Amino acid sequence: MKRRDLIGAAALMACGAVRAQAAPAFSAEDLQHAEALRAAGLADKHAWAFVQELCNTIGPRPAGSDNEKKAATWAVARLAQLGLSNARIEPTPMKAWLRGAASAKLVAPVAEPLVMAALGNSIAAPPGGIEADVAWYPDFAALKADTSERAKGRIVFIDQKTERTRDGAGYGAAVVARSQGAIEAARRGALAVGIRSIGTDIERIAHTGAMRYELGLPRIPAFAVSAPDANRIAALNATGRTLRLQFTLDAQSDVETTTQNVIAEVPGTDLADEIVLISGHLDSWDLGRGAIDDGAGCAIASAAGAAIAAAGRKPRRTVRVVLWGNEENGFHGALSYGDRYKAVVHQMVSESDFGAGRIWQMRGRVQPAAVPLVQQMAQLLAPLGVAWPEQGYNEGGPGPDAAMLMRRHKWPGIALNQDGTAYFDVHHTVHDTLDRIEPAALQQNVACWAATAWLAAQAPLPFGPPVF
Amino acid sequence: MKRRDLIGAAALMACGAVRAQAAPAFSAEDLQHAEALRAAGLADKHAWAFVQELCNTIGPRPAGSDNEKKAATWAVARLAQLGLSNARIEPTPMKAWLRGAASAKLVAPVAEPLVMAALGNSIAAPPGGIEADVAWYPDFAALKADTSERAKGRIVFIDQKTERTRDGAGYGAAVVARSQGAIEAARRGALAVGIRSIGTDIERIAHTGAMRYELGLPRIPAFAVSAPDANRIAALNATGRTLRLQFTLDAQSDVETTTQNVIAEVPGTDLADEIVLISGHLDSWDLGRGAIDDGAGCAIASAAGAAIAAAGRKPRRTVRVVLWGNEENGFHGALSYGDRYKAVVHQMVSESDFGAGRIWQMRGRVQPAAVPLVQQMAQLLAPLGVAWPEQGYNEGGPGPDAAMLMRRHKWPGIALNQDGTAYFDVHHTVHDTLDRIEPAALQQNVACWAATAWLAAQAPLPFGPPVF
Repeated sequence: MKRRDLIGAAALMACGAVRAQAAPAFSAEDLQHAEALRAAGLADKHAWAFVQELCNTIGPRPAGSDNEKKAATWAVARLAQLGLSNARIEPTPMKAWLRGAASAKLVAPVAEPLVMAALGNSIAAPPGGIEADVAWYPDFAALKADTSERAKGRIVFIDQKTERTRDGAGYGAAVVARSQGAIEAARRGALAVGIRSIGTDIERIAHTGAMRYELGLPRIPAFAVSAPDANRIAALNATGRTLRLQFTLDAQSDVETTTQNVIAEVPGTDLADEIVLISGHLDSWDLGRGAIDDGAGCAIASAAGAAIAAAGRKPRRTVRVVLWGNEENGFHGALSYGDRYKAVVHQMVSESDFGAGRIWQMRGRVQPAAVPLVQQMAQLLAPLGVAWPEQGYNEGGPGPDAAMLMRRHKWPGIALNQDGTAYFDVHHTVHDTLDRIEPAALQQNVACWAATAWLAAQAPLPFGPPVF
Repeated sequence: MKRRDLIGAAALMACGAVRAQAAPAFSAEDLQHAEALRAAGLADKHAWAFVQELCNTIGPRPAGSDNEKKAATWAVARLAQLGLSNARIEPTPMKAWLRGAASAKLVAPVAEPLVMAALGNSIAAPPGGIEADVAWYPDFAALKADTSERAKGRIVFIDQKTERTRDGAGYGAAVVARSQGAIEAARRGALAVGIRSIGTDIERIAHTGAMRYELGLPRIPAFAVSAPDANRIAALNATGRTLRLQFTLDAQSDVETTTQNVIAEVPGTDLADEIVLISGHLDSWDLGRGAIDDGAGCAIASAAGAAIAAAGRKPRRTVRVVLWGNEENGFHGALSYGDRYKAVVHQMVSESDFGAGRIWQMRGRVQPAAVPLVQQMAQLLAPLGVAWPEQGYNEGGPGPDAAMLMRRHKWPGIALNQDGTAYFDVHHTVHDTLDRIEPAALQQNVACWAATAWLAAQAPLPFGPPVF
């Protein structure tokens, strides 16, 4: 599709969306510049170089760790190198969780080691670990529904499965077993909780991730085992034999430390005090190298900012790249950002944090009058395979940190949804390495984000307040 | 295709193959029974139950281990249950290799643990391990070509890549880095050898497998790292910085023990003293559970034998199911079988040991006069997606133990080639679990093997001696 046709089609669709009124629209010059940014993004080399260097020279970056700080120091210099302005680190205190050694094994009816990982925030088990019979549940709902004494004095095992979906809905439905499994197990007197990894793979790796406790209930250790191990436990359980499990788990909670956001900007012109925020999170879980979660997102946001800075035209609003600290285990970076910048007008908050797959859909969360603009932005990305949905187009979720800020501060959000079909094969595991990233897919992401951030910065209307 | 057409077509093709002579052919009754076995195989439940129970209740079965013995005791009872006769265990002495603890880490230019596994037969490293600079080679050929002193006093790292192929040719080309890497590294004065795992995956798992030493050269420790770790090493090496690596490796070699073959039969009638041998190997590497390597093959051979036993008609020749001991690290089971049965006529030796994928090709290794019969057997499997190649149809490799016996004893072989496209993602790793097996693919294998073994047992001609 040629540029002229594209503008015509977008204008037509925008007109249809608001019926008889004249729809707000981007200028032809701004759309033309967005197309140039889209083309520049498709040829981008910065994102791949960014994530490669981050993962190869720094590696995993647990929230509050030295590696997370090292990454911030590296990233702030890299953002300045990439031509962004006001590059800075904004630290904030946090309490970190530190993984120690852990192991688990089946004791009966057969003896075999299990591949496991402690869940983030789990308390340590007593020295020597815990050995007990297993109370097996097919899913979290079955545990919640259990009014018997079966879990008491046992290790609860939740065999919650995660459905593979493009949009992460399967993960959304399953993750409660990880986040709240220990609460419901403790409520029933269990000694510990083990879960099937929240993931879509069949690999012998365990998926970590955050869990939480409830005040007033005992805190019990929590861990995940690999899907093949969970399958074996299920098969053995189905034979009616007693399952017995032993595990050790060392960890430290509430370690006083700091995390930090890394921020850099393409300063705006007439609306410079309004912010168009694109982001990723710099922290990662400790097991892999934080490549797809979320080195890729940091790389994409940084390269998109760099593309705007390099393209010559200054934006009206300030485009701000933020690399969040501690997304994974408490949102400390995003919370402190909200506190610091709560009085600043945000035209858009957004985040790339769903792996390194291609973007297939745009959705907004903006004031109704701005919807035609967002639709026009989406239309510009149609040649890259990005759809504007018929329904729910103004119910977007712009990524975890951004979504939290959107709800808390009533800042409008834009979501560019990546294909997450394979994301939960790797999420929060040792497999989160560079090898999972296709450089061409990164370029498609950079193209989408550069064009989107640019148009948001040029928009003739405020995007907020969003509709919830 | 109807049965009558099938016989016609096969006969036609057979005629073509031997030109003007009348081709040997199976009787219509034998072909009809083969079709019934084919149908029975497609509905088989025994193979899946066999491999499930083997992997879930016994798990990994390293050659010479208690688990391998336990598996033999279990399997001999299971074969009798499945209706086979003369079920027995035939032990033989061997020297086992036992894995101990091992670890590796990059020390410079960045510090990070590597996912690694000792290679089978590796000597132990000295207590405390070895730390040295790395001499990096892109592949085994580059190491062999190196006439410099570069490897001396260093840890050689061979970045040999394995190409993904359906027939395993990629593995065949790459595995020399594993089997002979320590020889070539030691020849150049290296302290140890590390290799990229011989595998086609991008997962953070290491592939083990057998390596060997050469008399007269120092024995040095040998290990493999995961593909993502090898990629990182390659990327860091490409920066020109010095790589330094530390590893520990504990292992015991030459541990006196026994392994054993498990054998059971469907006794023949007029040619009962001739053997049609179908097989798998009961031992496995220790890291996974020996599901696709080679619980699946044992299950397929056992279920195929059971189908023949259950189908009512007795074969002319004796169909012998063999579950080999120690295929993985020295062929002790197959070697002892050859010694014991060398005087017995074998009509066919064959083995299922290439995972649990569907069979896509049949090839033989028989006397020229028997080729039309093998082609007719293949034709019967055409409806299951099995091809008879235009070239190389009499150059089949019937699986590792069977191929060794074929060459050593001049016994004819039949190969049913499984699709191994994904096999080397999992081969010799912790990922070798039941989760990789599709029950319907097992049934296709059972159907092919039951029909094939039956026809080999009924053949109007001896298949041997084979052509090499």
